[in-house]
Amino acid sequence: MTNPSSNARTKVYAEGPHGLRVPFTEIELDPSPGTGEANPPFRIYDTSGPGSTPEEGLAPLRHAWIKDREDVETYTGRGRQLTDDGRSAVRRGESAAEWRGVRREPLRAKAGHRVTQMHYARLGMVTPEMEFIAVRERCDVELVRSEVAAGRAIIPANINHPETEPMIIGKAFLVKVNANIGNSAVTSSIAEEVDKMSWATKWGADTVMDLSTGDDIHTTREWIVRNSPVPIGTVPIYQALEKVDGNADQLTWETYRDTVIEQCEQGVDYMTVHAGVLLRYVPLTANRITGIVSRGGSIMAGWCLAHHEESFLYTHFDELCEIFAQYDVAFSLGDGLRPGCTADANDEAQLSELRTLGELTSRAWEHDVQVMVEGPGHVPLNLVEENVRLEQEWCHGAPFYTLGPLATDIAPGYDHITSAIGAATIAMHGTAMLCYVTPKEHLGLPDRDDVKTGVITYKLAAHSADIAKGHPGARDWDDTLSKARFEFRWNDQFNLSLDPDTARSMHDETLPADAAKTAHFCSMCGPKFCSMRISQDVRDRFGSTPADVQEGMEQMSKTFVELGSSVYVDASPSD
Amino acid sequence: MTNPSSNARTKVYAEGPHGLRVPFTEIELDPSPGTGEANPPFRIYDTSGPGSTPEEGLAPLRHAWIKDREDVETYTGRGRQLTDDGRSAVRRGESAAEWRGVRREPLRAKAGHRVTQMHYARLGMVTPEMEFIAVRERCDVELVRSEVAAGRAIIPANINHPETEPMIIGKAFLVKVNANIGNSAVTSSIAEEVDKMSWATKWGADTVMDLSTGDDIHTTREWIVRNSPVPIGTVPIYQALEKVDGNADQLTWETYRDTVIEQCEQGVDYMTVHAGVLLRYVPLTANRITGIVSRGGSIMAGWCLAHHEESFLYTHFDELCEIFAQYDVAFSLGDGLRPGCTADANDEAQLSELRTLGELTSRAWEHDVQVMVEGPGHVPLNLVEENVRLEQEWCHGAPFYTLGPLATDIAPGYDHITSAIGAATIAMHGTAMLCYVTPKEHLGLPDRDDVKTGVITYKLAAHSADIAKGHPGARDWDDTLSKARFEFRWNDQFNLSLDPDTARSMHDETLPADAAKTAHFCSMCGPKFCSMRISQDVRDRFGSTPADVQEGMEQMSKTFVELGSSVYVDASPSD
Repeated sequence: MTNPSSNARTKVYAEGPHGLRVPFTEIELDPSPGTGEANPPFRIYDTSGPGSTPEEGLAPLRHAWIKDREDVETYTGRGRQLTDDGRSAVRRGESAAEWRGVRREPLRAKAGHRVTQMHYARLGMVTPEMEFIAVRERCDVELVRSEVAAGRAIIPANINHPETEPMIIGKAFLVKVNANIGNSAVTSSIAEEVDKMSWATKWGADTVMDLSTGDDIHTTREWIVRNSPVPIGTVPIYQALEKVDGNADQLTWETYRDTVIEQCEQGVDYMTVHAGVLLRYVPLTANRITGIVSRGGSIMAGWCLAHHEESFLYTHFDELCEIFAQYDVAFSLGDGLRPGCTADANDEAQLSELRTLGELTSRAWEHDVQVMVEGPGHVPLNLVEENVRLEQEWCHGAPFYTLGPLATDIAPGYDHITSAIGAATIAMHGTAMLCYVTPKEHLGLPDRDDVKTGVITYKLAAHSADIAKGHPGARDWDDTLSKARFEFRWNDQFNLSLDPDTARSMHDETLPADAAKTAHFCSMCGPKFCSMRISQDVRDRFGSTPADVQEGMEQMSKTFVELGSSVYVDASPSD
Repeated sequence: MTNPSSNARTKVYAEGPHGLRVPFTEIELDPSPGTGEANPPFRIYDTSGPGSTPEEGLAPLRHAWIKDREDVETYTGRGRQLTDDGRSAVRRGESAAEWRGVRREPLRAKAGHRVTQMHYARLGMVTPEMEFIAVRERCDVELVRSEVAAGRAIIPANINHPETEPMIIGKAFLVKVNANIGNSAVTSSIAEEVDKMSWATKWGADTVMDLSTGDDIHTTREWIVRNSPVPIGTVPIYQALEKVDGNADQLTWETYRDTVIEQCEQGVDYMTVHAGVLLRYVPLTANRITGIVSRGGSIMAGWCLAHHEESFLYTHFDELCEIFAQYDVAFSLGDGLRPGCTADANDEAQLSELRTLGELTSRAWEHDVQVMVEGPGHVPLNLVEENVRLEQEWCHGAPFYTLGPLATDIAPGYDHITSAIGAATIAMHGTAMLCYVTPKEHLGLPDRDDVKTGVITYKLAAHSADIAKGHPGARDWDDTLSKARFEFRWNDQFNLSLDPDTARSMHDETLPADAAKTAHFCSMCGPKFCSMRISQDVRDRFGSTPADVQEGMEQMSKTFVELGSSVYVDASPSD
């Protein structure tokens, strides 16, 4: 009657139109004890991909779809230059761990073409990517197409990252979670970062951002992209800054543009661009407690002040759009002036930038380039909703993508939690994707355990929002687990959990015996006091099948209503 | 310039009226680097008590205050009976670890007197307890008195628990946190439970509930009460049930009453009483996914059905009030029909009981007995606010005390987080005290680490709510920490954290050197990319003292406004 629990979760593929195979995690369930009622297997959204050998990378699932559209061409790309990997690679004459897996010639749009999902959607085309997503989200494909066409949702899908399983970011769909990884000048190796990416997708990360700022940036990214079943985001200014030895003053549009093309050719699916940090907004941060806390934001603020010029990201924004349209790279319009503490939330600096991001959203859409807009950061709970409202209004409904926000600043070491509180709240109000925060936020770079904790924490925040939004079918997962809990189907409860391993091991700390997995009690109350058991006994008084129980109890309830508030005398023949 | 950080947090006492000494944790801060500006020490609310040797217990801080009111008398109490400690104590002829510290004769109200803080407040009296609280909460003592008089706040303060440092639970005050401890038939020893209580108060628990259901209930509680600087709550039905060998059918009002008096004499400050589980409400749970999940609720539901009678807790409620008024025990009106999963939230069973709790609140107030009302449990975020609104309306503003609620059911092992999301939200809307949930919820009994994680998680949820409510001074803590963060005062940042040990050790994982504690960067970005540093550099362009920086930046901002949106040309003479 009990499953060998570790086998109860399997990856299955749902059949979509045109032979599409869409992944789900299927959880086999035990029958209900007593009644023997069968519990059908339960399927959940699966982000983990088909699995890869890191040295080889993933198969290019979307390659044929892209080719079939006949609007792309291969070309001799810019190619990797040793300086792309930083000074130490130049010194060594090679990067630390050269990518030796498959190398495809880069694709770009044929002249005069735009190859973005938004472009297709606006033309009324339904792409395989959209069909895949409709199966994955269990919705009508027309919802997918129309939301993308309207700019209310994006499908990050660089034509040079054919390895991805298509996914969508928009408030009409399941709330998504991004996990940040990446090395810094101080820590981390390439293998560790690839492992973190796979680990993050195993636990449910819908996209991954590679925020590397240390050595071997290009090569680290190559390994990550080639192995990633989920869209990869980056912040190109980090690498551009590395190319000018960290001197923000020496950044140029040309260096930046070259870096963007480098990353477009590698297959980065979305890029954070802090084009809303305008020169005139910088002084608005003067009275803040924590000034500018976005790295990209402060780099651009420094550049603007040093040159007494408007940001080149802003002045060259249309060129950027033209490039993105050739690869279907989506903008993640960065909030470089986001608040770094609750005191600075929703201030003039933040909101001024947001207005500019709205203007840039419209400009990108003129190029059929997909856009999401980044949001804070640190926001007291009473100011959270306003962030979504203004973003939706000023940015014309473009998907909101927020970092938390943290609801308080006083708990370093627990900022996955302080931010999950804000994240669930902001997602309930309409944020489409949440950027995770790990326990190491403000203190160090996340390790493997932190990545897992961050992803699980954000999955539960995202799911809490899906439930609160009344997203179709979202609560089924909760109801299925709760039924298993009530029926003491312990293995089912574990297998239905976001993190079965942790749930099982915590239970086993006090009651390790296998028999305890079917026991009608647990270690909290012990066998005699168990409320679930007593509650089941109460049910049992009225019959032996679920229908009988329900009828008996309902009859009793009805009698009560007829008698008003007087004390009921049970008419049941037994005892 | 850097503190030997472990010495930077000390307990200090603020002087109150009439020689009262009110505890705070004082955190010494470094001066700001560069400017040398002094940062005054920061004080936070302190729940840890003066510290005790477990075998001896705490000094009776309130004893003289209670005596001075001249409305109590000592008497030969009911005394401890061996059966109070369960069958194994009877078998052994003694409890497992007899309490050998000080034993005072129990106090009770003199005939014709009520000795509750509510009684005094209604008479316009300001008690030392109220004065202590006013210093602790940094508010006017009249606010304390008037809120208690109105029933909107309670001061749990059994006259037989003089060891407590007075505290208040009400929405006009800081949001409080309760930690549950207690053994079960399966696990735990007395020493462990006393240690958990002290440990919980060290991290910020404002009250502790002893939910023991195993052996040695009486003696375990004696050790806990004698050592606890915070109010202790219990659920007397658990012990009463133990006295009838776990057979709910055999419970009687007499056994229950005797157990309540036993606990009143020991000094329990508030008791959960599930007097709202009426016979006619039980069938309303028939269609639920998880039926009745409250232990007390299911025990009483079972009793009602077995006897075809209304709950003795309801029919004898006035007698209970008379007893509570003699000791100043506060009601925590239990929500025996609270939802056990998100699907069951805000249903007819739950709301019917809540209406009855409102009726019982009024009845208790007729006896000048203090009341708080318990709330759920498991509630989707969109239904959270309604819980507070209805409780406040139907229960006439009595403080709400909620268990979480969990915002989703799918994350066993992480329910401290799923519930902190609901807890912060419900507290923002007016819940006065939050009952913590630990990572072990639904899986096992919390150990020492779980207790700490639960308390810290709930402190951050409570504080997030304080900020969102705009509670006077609440955000000062965040602002002080954020300023330290911006100025790279690492030790200050750690010491100002809810959990300095964890914050420090996470930082030290990547940058252990002492020098890194004053470094103007951290391991996330490394020295070159640090946004905080760049942001400070931006400030530095405008002057060297904070006043200059502000003036320079504001001047720049003003110029911008005058120029409208055209690109600014910096008039500063440098570079």
